[in-house]
Amino acid sequence: MIELSSSTWTDMRDVLASGPPLAVLPFGALEQHGPHLPLDTDTRQAEAIARGIASGLDAVLLPSIEYGNTWGNAAFPGTVSLSVDTVAAICGDIAASLDAAGFALLVVVNGDYGNRLPLQLAAEKRAAAGERMPVLVLDYPGLVDIGDQVKESPWAAPGLCHADELETSMMLAISPATVHPERFVAEYPGLPPDFGQRPQALAPLGETGVFGDPRAATAAKGEQIIAHVVTQSLAAIERTLRSLGLR
Amino acid sequence: MIELSSSTWTDMRDVLASGPPLAVLPFGALEQHGPHLPLDTDTRQAEAIARGIASGLDAVLLPSIEYGNTWGNAAFPGTVSLSVDTVAAICGDIAASLDAAGFALLVVVNGDYGNRLPLQLAAEKRAAAGERMPVLVLDYPGLVDIGDQVKESPWAAPGLCHADELETSMMLAISPATVHPERFVAEYPGLPPDFGQRPQALAPLGETGVFGDPRAATAAKGEQIIAHVVTQSLAAIERTLRSLGLR
Amino acid sequence: MIELSSSTWTDMRDVLASGPPLAVLPFGALEQHGPHLPLDTDTRQAEAIARGIASGLDAVLLPSIEYGNTWGNAAFPGTVSLSVDTVAAICGDIAASLDAAGFALLVVVNGDYGNRLPLQLAAEKRAAAGERMPVLVLDYPGLVDIGDQVKESPWAAPGLCHADELETSMMLAISPATVHPERFVAEYPGLPPDFGQRPQALAPLGETGVFGDPRAATAAKGEQIIAHVVTQSLAAIERTLRSLGLR
Amino acid sequence: MIELSSSTWTDMRDVLASGPPLAVLPFGALEQHGPHLPLDTDTRQAEAIARGIASGLDAVLLPSIEYGNTWGNAAFPGTVSLSVDTVAAICGDIAASLDAAGFALLVVVNGDYGNRLPLQLAAEKRAAAGERMPVLVLDYPGLVDIGDQVKESPWAAPGLCHADELETSMMLAISPATVHPERFVAEYPGLPPDFGQRPQALAPLGETGVFGDPRAATAAKGEQIIAHVVTQSLAAIERTLRSLGLR
Amino acid sequence: MIELSSSTWTDMRDVLASGPPLAVLPFGALEQHGPHLPLDTDTRQAEAIARGIASGLDAVLLPSIEYGNTWGNAAFPGTVSLSVDTVAAICGDIAASLDAAGFALLVVVNGDYGNRLPLQLAAEKRAAAGERMPVLVLDYPGLVDIGDQVKESPWAAPGLCHADELETSMMLAISPATVHPERFVAEYPGLPPDFGQRPQALAPLGETGVFGDPRAATAAKGEQIIAHVVTQSLAAIERTLRSLGLR
Amino acid sequence: MIELSSSTWTDMRDVLASGPPLAVLPFGALEQHGPHLPLDTDTRQAEAIARGIASGLDAVLLPSIEYGNTWGNAAFPGTVSLSVDTVAAICGDIAASLDAAGFALLVVVNGDYGNRLPLQLAAEKRAAAGERMPVLVLDYPGLVDIGDQVKESPWAAPGLCHADELETSMMLAISPATVHPERFVAEYPGLPPDFGQRPQALAPLGETGVFGDPRAATAAKGEQIIAHVVTQSLAAIERTLRSLGLR
Repeated sequence: MIELSSSTWTDMRDVLASGPPLAVLPFGALEQHGPHLPLDTDTRQAEAIARGIASGLDAVLLPSIEYGNTWGNAAFPGTVSLSVDTVAAICGDIAASLDAAGFALLVVVNGDYGNRLPLQLAAEKRAAAGERMPVLVLDYPGLVDIGDQVKESPWAAPGLCHADELETSMMLAISPATVHPERFVAEYPGLPPDFGQRPQALAPLGETGVFGDPRAATAAKGEQIIAHVVTQSLAAIERTLRSLGLR
Repeated sequence: MIELSSSTWTDMRDVLASGPPLAVLPFGALEQHGPHLPLDTDTRQAEAIARGIASGLDAVLLPSIEYGNTWGNAAFPGTVSLSVDTVAAICGDIAASLDAAGFALLVVVNGDYGNRLPLQLAAEKRAAAGERMPVLVLDYPGLVDIGDQVKESPWAAPGLCHADELETSMMLAISPATVHPERFVAEYPGLPPDFGQRPQALAPLGETGVFGDPRAATAAKGEQIIAHVVTQSLAAIERTLRSLGLR
Repeated sequence: MIELSSSTWTDMRDVLASGPPLAVLPFGALEQHGPHLPLDTDTRQAEAIARGIASGLDAVLLPSIEYGNTWGNAAFPGTVSLSVDTVAAICGDIAASLDAAGFALLVVVNGDYGNRLPLQLAAEKRAAAGERMPVLVLDYPGLVDIGDQVKESPWAAPGLCHADELETSMMLAISPATVHPERFVAEYPGLPPDFGQRPQALAPLGETGVFGDPRAATAAKGEQIIAHVVTQSLAAIERTLRSLGLR
Repeated sequence: MIELSSSTWTDMRDVLASGPPLAVLPFGALEQHGPHLPLDTDTRQAEAIARGIASGLDAVLLPSIEYGNTWGNAAFPGTVSLSVDTVAAICGDIAASLDAAGFALLVVVNGDYGNRLPLQLAAEKRAAAGERMPVLVLDYPGLVDIGDQVKESPWAAPGLCHADELETSMMLAISPATVHPERFVAEYPGLPPDFGQRPQALAPLGETGVFGDPRAATAAKGEQIIAHVVTQSLAAIERTLRSLGLR
Repeated sequence: MIELSSSTWTDMRDVLASGPPLAVLPFGALEQHGPHLPLDTDTRQAEAIARGIASGLDAVLLPSIEYGNTWGNAAFPGTVSLSVDTVAAICGDIAASLDAAGFALLVVVNGDYGNRLPLQLAAEKRAAAGERMPVLVLDYPGLVDIGDQVKESPWAAPGLCHADELETSMMLAISPATVHPERFVAEYPGLPPDFGQRPQALAPLGETGVFGDPRAATAAKGEQIIAHVVTQSLAAIERTLRSLGLR
Repeated sequence: MIELSSSTWTDMRDVLASGPPLAVLPFGALEQHGPHLPLDTDTRQAEAIARGIASGLDAVLLPSIEYGNTWGNAAFPGTVSLSVDTVAAICGDIAASLDAAGFALLVVVNGDYGNRLPLQLAAEKRAAAGERMPVLVLDYPGLVDIGDQVKESPWAAPGLCHADELETSMMLAISPATVHPERFVAEYPGLPPDFGQRPQALAPLGETGVFGDPRAATAAKGEQIIAHVVTQSLAAIERTLRSLGLR
């Protein structure tokens, strides 16, 4: 794995000389994650998973984007949101730079629900415009499966994890110093009947910003979750590399 | 100082409850800095200076933007550039979030020459639109003065420092592990007679991407530089706070 | 059900006088559907399903949009594509008009895969901007379930139906005169291993534009499919109406 | 004439194989037309005229756009308006698709006053950008002449026909079932002295949305009007085809 | 008449204190006008007519815009063109400033065919957005009538005057020193059969850029033309002032 | 020097035939300049300096843009402002026209503080897009030096001159008839401590719009100032011409 941030341009010249590399971009957010997890939870998780992916692929790990589209949490202090257009522009510009530089593929590891649409949009616009280098956006493949396996507490909604046992476990594995176990509190907000059907703000739904129960979280579970998502991500990337004739 | 990334929303709720806080945003870039400095040099420097400022002000330190507008270095491998419109949009969106949340001032610590125009533009557009919370963009105030004091090697051009003694000193102070002293090489590219008068690509001007001589760099000089820029930045912010009636 | 196109403004004045109505917008496309189905297949299907929904809800049926984002089929003659930005703008403008006029909800019945992102984007942008009237985008809920029940031929890929037994059945039910049974031909194009993972053009994948086997299609199956999707759509809308406090 | 909506891609492949075809696009609107005519009056009229043109030319008839720029009628319930930018984008995208596909000319048959500017703008932008396939926008050539011939009631203003004898006659010819003769009412709103000089909303000018007198309308007059506008349109297209060296 | 350019802000304060003033903006172009007329012909004519109007109304005369949308003449050296979007933006920004400052009406005196669409578009967008101060765009009302009266040479096409007897007469009246009688040459380019029906470049149509015959031009005719257009413009503005309840 | 406005296209054809010419564009503004100077002060000064430059270079002098970005003075009657985006678009469009026509360089002589950012932005965007013809934006080089020499009154702030001795002197030299000596008044507004550090409106800072003391102004000083700025501008352009290999 090459960490782009700490590499020099001569390092990268050598990397590129041995063939078109793969790039992995963690795209996070700065949004509330309950009283016990830091605002950059999504970024740290995306970074950890991206790092695992880049290691597995011997790819170039890009620096993280630490902000995302998270208007739905704006009512919680400390949340800072980019618009969907800005998220799409960041992804599009980075992809254009890498395409021009000769990379083979950009894998975006998305850590924030609100980034899904704009990142897919950026990928779609480039594809429609006839790009050379494709963009593959991954939204934690396998997360629900591994969640079903390791979770002891119920889901707040099928597949919904926000400041819950899963996210807290991942943060205990990645960055235990930023987790506040003394503030662990379970909340299962009543969700509107059409939750997930259309864009809705999370903020009015609960008191604490927690959607689930962090109390059963452990670092071991977090490692298991990350490992599984990395494995599933590598499988997805493998499919794309075969699709591109690179495997 | 409050580091926003590792704070929780409840931490920030308490911060906001005690009055409108100040925010400090490091805005970096991912661009070539010679064979001996990492691609994220601008980000790390902006971050170090922003941290010093945030400490001095008891302000909220925002996570860094690790990409900037650096098309002029695009020919050097590993450089990844955002467009001017994207840089301006990022700054504008973050300012809008902080304004809505009740912050008193956003200080942007800019670490990349190419970000100057778009960051100023974002500040100007918000001012023209009648913002409540102003944006103050700082471009390392005092850097040339302290450079004149500590530098043993000549400037590549008045005020131009790129991968030279000054930047290398700062990186030795901030992140010595990413500096490659064995690759130190001096280069004083012949500059076009109108250098600095109009937008021009740096890439064709030299071989190594170095504009100066890193060989006399020391961590001690780096600390001196950073301390001076922080002090000058605090003085500038102090002026703005008085201008806003906050001091 | 009120069909907006053939109503007068005085009819609509009376409708609005009895409370905020619901609106249903079919959003189609003009794209290849094999040698045996017409280019407006997506529009006719969306229209039929939207009509069923509007009947079930006593809602206002809007005229169809007969073009969509279908760049991936552009290589097949007769395909005419709008950009993602144009699709999003159409949806956003119509929603803004209905919001201003006092409608309670806009349900968009999307008939084209390529419209998913831009329609969701339009809904998201309005939500983030604090709309009064929400937009609910439906992508044929229940289609895969009913497909699993009625299909005699295999799927070209899980959930993929394009000019296959399902679409042909629906068209036999809706508009038999535009179906050419004498041209029925089965094709199961080899799909790239990452099919569905990222935006990709359909055009290079097959010869005929068919993804499946239209030969077992019947109008009876088509009616069953449509009825099921309508029922599932009504259930989804019901959830949103409860979410909005309207049921 | 080839009706694109009900054709298949293989049909269109054959059409294109015999030389660059002409395309005819009806562009309508969804706006009030008094108590007696349906909201889609403009679309149906544009469609009828476009069909006559396509027949006369053996051209490809495109599906109609059933929405237009009609902000000036927004105060009448049931009116749904696109912005000028969206109207221009739709026309530009469709033209780009047809240009890429090898069409010789796109004729836009505009049925709504508010679409004139944006459609002309779309045509102009393509021309200025050096298009291959031109766009010809027609606004019912000859309508005033034939109106002068057939009308028994006075014009509400020179050349102004909205829900009057002319439009009602056309609708009696095209779609009698959607016309409500029992609601026929004449209204000659007092027009501002600068009517037609600058963009102004129609809505405040009258009570009923009628500008004239529908009572003398007949289907026979409607057929006469349509036939005349089709003939004049064909003459205009003939001039453009000669201009392009295609006749 | 108040000439804004040479007034001071205190002059304008006094003007505004005596009630909402009218503003007159000449919008020209920089485009070829044959070998005998200067490139700024459209600007000087618009300025002369605007001055006449402003005198007649005791209005505020704004400084001229000396560039316009004239892509169709770009092949003639010295022509400099703005895009339609830029022309519309200039007009929209100026209107917004005057609206905020309390003006009653902005009259735009357009001197260039290519500005018609974008200026009307700017006016329309403001009207649709619910402006307070309207924009009235005038395209030399009465020019054809007076042309029919004074012209001794034939029109190059009905209503078409470019570097011909009419324009040359106006320039002899306005700015004789910039007219080159020794280069007078008549040219009647063969026009395409659909001339004026759709956007087309002028450049390929003739050799000299002249469309008509400048030889019979006189300053006296020019004064007559200008006086007539001013009178007709004042009549049009009078209608709008009555429409606004200001007369 | 060739004055483009009064040249014909055949004149320019001959100019272009003898090699790629240089173009000089004065970019002004329409903004308050105290009770004694006209609103177009910035335009007239930019024009005078641009004329001097064009003479010195035997370049093509373009017509002036008489409006600029001056939102900060909007509260003073008579000020009319363009947005930053419009200023950038005007400059970009003109540069694109000149580039296509074969000019060697566009020199923009900027007369308004608020135009600096958008003009630099236009130049930067073209450079980043790989333009052929560069844009050089000049902001009165040498003005402060000559000001220090000729001024008898103190500066309102270092380098700040607005309606003061310097600007009044220049206007006495350029256009004495528009200067009102009887209204000369000195004002030294208290400036906020961060004046010049970030975008701020000028309007609230003073009563008169004067920043300095016009009373010592003379036409002789004005001529000296203009001559010096022209000389310094020519030196800057010389450097760019050498940089481009044209000297």
